[in-house]
Amino acid sequence: MERKLILISNDDGYKAQGIGELTEWMLSLGDVIVVAPDSARSGAACSITHTLPVSLKSRRKKIQPNGHELQIWSCSGSPVDCVKLALERICPRKPDLMVSGINHGDNASCSIHYSGTMGAVVESCLKEIPSIGYSLRTLAQQCDFAPYRETTIRIAQFVLEHGLPLDVCLNVNYPEVDNLQGLRVCRLARGIWNHEWIPAQNPRGVDAYWLTGEFSNLEPSSEDTDYWALDHGFAAVTPITIDMTAYAAMKGLKPLEK
Amino acid sequence: MERKLILISNDDGYKAQGIGELTEWMLSLGDVIVVAPDSARSGAACSITHTLPVSLKSRRKKIQPNGHELQIWSCSGSPVDCVKLALERICPRKPDLMVSGINHGDNASCSIHYSGTMGAVVESCLKEIPSIGYSLRTLAQQCDFAPYRETTIRIAQFVLEHGLPLDVCLNVNYPEVDNLQGLRVCRLARGIWNHEWIPAQNPRGVDAYWLTGEFSNLEPSSEDTDYWALDHGFAAVTPITIDMTAYAAMKGLKPLEK
Repeated sequence: MERKLILISNDDGYKAQGIGELTEWMLSLGDVIVVAPDSARSGAACSITHTLPVSLKSRRKKIQPNGHELQIWSCSGSPVDCVKLALERICPRKPDLMVSGINHGDNASCSIHYSGTMGAVVESCLKEIPSIGYSLRTLAQQCDFAPYRETTIRIAQFVLEHGLPLDVCLNVNYPEVDNLQGLRVCRLARGIWNHEWIPAQNPRGVDAYWLTGEFSNLEPSSEDTDYWALDHGFAAVTPITIDMTAYAAMKGLKPLEK
Repeated sequence: MERKLILISNDDGYKAQGIGELTEWMLSLGDVIVVAPDSARSGAACSITHTLPVSLKSRRKKIQPNGHELQIWSCSGSPVDCVKLALERICPRKPDLMVSGINHGDNASCSIHYSGTMGAVVESCLKEIPSIGYSLRTLAQQCDFAPYRETTIRIAQFVLEHGLPLDVCLNVNYPEVDNLQGLRVCRLARGIWNHEWIPAQNPRGVDAYWLTGEFSNLEPSSEDTDYWALDHGFAAVTPITIDMTAYAAMKGLKPLEK
C-alpha cells in the first residue's frame, strides 16, 4: 500500500512551535512535506503575492527512523502562496491530506476570514485536497500542545479514512486547557470585532493607528457554535464550505433581473 | 428625510479609474465617503495589518453642486483595514450602503477568495452594513465604464431600498461588452487555477517564481453560474454569505464526537 502523503503549512512561519508539533504528529501517519512562510504572516487571510517573485528555501530533508520522509521548505510568500507552490513545484503527487497550524490563536467565529492558517486550508480545498486547519486559543508563542495530540491525530485519521465532501474543509479550534472536555461538531458563531484601533503617532508627528480589537460573541448562549465549545473546554470542529454562494438569498434578488 | 450615507472602498487604490467612476455614480444617491488603499492591493483578500501602524490621509473634502458631501481618504493598509478605519474613525454614523470597486478584473468563481475588492465587502458585511462589490472582467487600467453605469446604480438603489439578508453581501461582475445582455442572479461557478508559477531567477542567481495562472471553469455549461453569465454577456449578481459553515457536512462528522 502506498504511503500517505501529508502537506503541512501555517501562517506563523516554519519555525513556530505549533507547526513543529503538528509535523511530529503527522509523521506517525505518513510522509510529510512542510511548506510554510519564512516568517509570521498572521492575518494574511487568502492573500496572494503577485507583485514580487516568491522564493523557496529547503530547510531539511531526511528519512525518519520509522522510514517516513520529511521535507521542510520555507517560502517568502503568503500561506496561500505556500500551498500553491507546494502543489505545483514540490509535491511528487497530490497529497492525501493537508493540515495547517497549529495556529497560536483561535480562528473561530468571524476571525476565520482574516486567518492565514485557514487561508492555506481554503487554497488546498480549492485544489480538491482534504484539508484541516488547527488553531489553539492562546496568545503565547510557547505553550503546551500535549493535550491536543490525540485529538489532532484522530481527526486527521478520520479525514484520511473517510475523506471530506467536495468543497468542504475543517476548521478545528482548541481551548487552552489541560484536559479537553471532548469534541463538538459546530457551526461558526456570529461575532463582531469592536474598538479595533489604538491611535498612535510616528516620531515625525504623523497620526497612525494600531489594529487591535475586542471580540464580541453575538450569540453566547448558542450551544451549537464553535465559540460555545471553546468557552466550555471542548475542541470545536467546524466544517467550512468554500462555496460562499448564499443560495437562500437568490430568490429575493430575482426582481433585479427585471 | 436624512440623506443616505455611502462608504466606498476598493483594492486598486484611491486613484484607480474604477473607484472614480463608482464615486461619481454614488453621489447621485447620497453623501459619499471614500476610504481606499494608497496604492494597488490586488490579491489582498481579507488580510489585515497588525505588525505596522496604519495611517490615513485626507485627499479631498467638498460639497458637490447637488449639495451632497464627498470625502476621499487614502489609507496605508489593506482593503479590510480601510473599512475598519472608515467605520470606527471617519464615518459620522453607520453607512446605509457600502460599495467596493469597480475592480479592474473579475472576481467570479473561486477568485472571490483572493479578492481585496470582496475582502472590503466581507468586512463591511461583518459589520452588518448592506455591501456590494463590483468588478469588471478586464485587464486594462483604463476602460470604458459607461456600459455599467445604469446597472450599477440600479443594484445599489435596490439594496438601499430593500436591504440584504443578515450576513449576505453581493458580488457583482461585469463582462467587457458595449451592451450588457441583461442581469443574472447567479451562484459561484466551481473553478480552479492551474499552471500558476513561472520560474524566474533574481540577478544573484536565486530561484524564484512569479504567480500567474490559467483559470479553468469546471462547469462551463451550468447556466446558473456567474462564469456562464459573464461568458454570455450578462452582469452576474451573486449573493455571498459570510457564514462559511458547511451545514450539510455536520452530520457526517458526528462520529468524531465519539
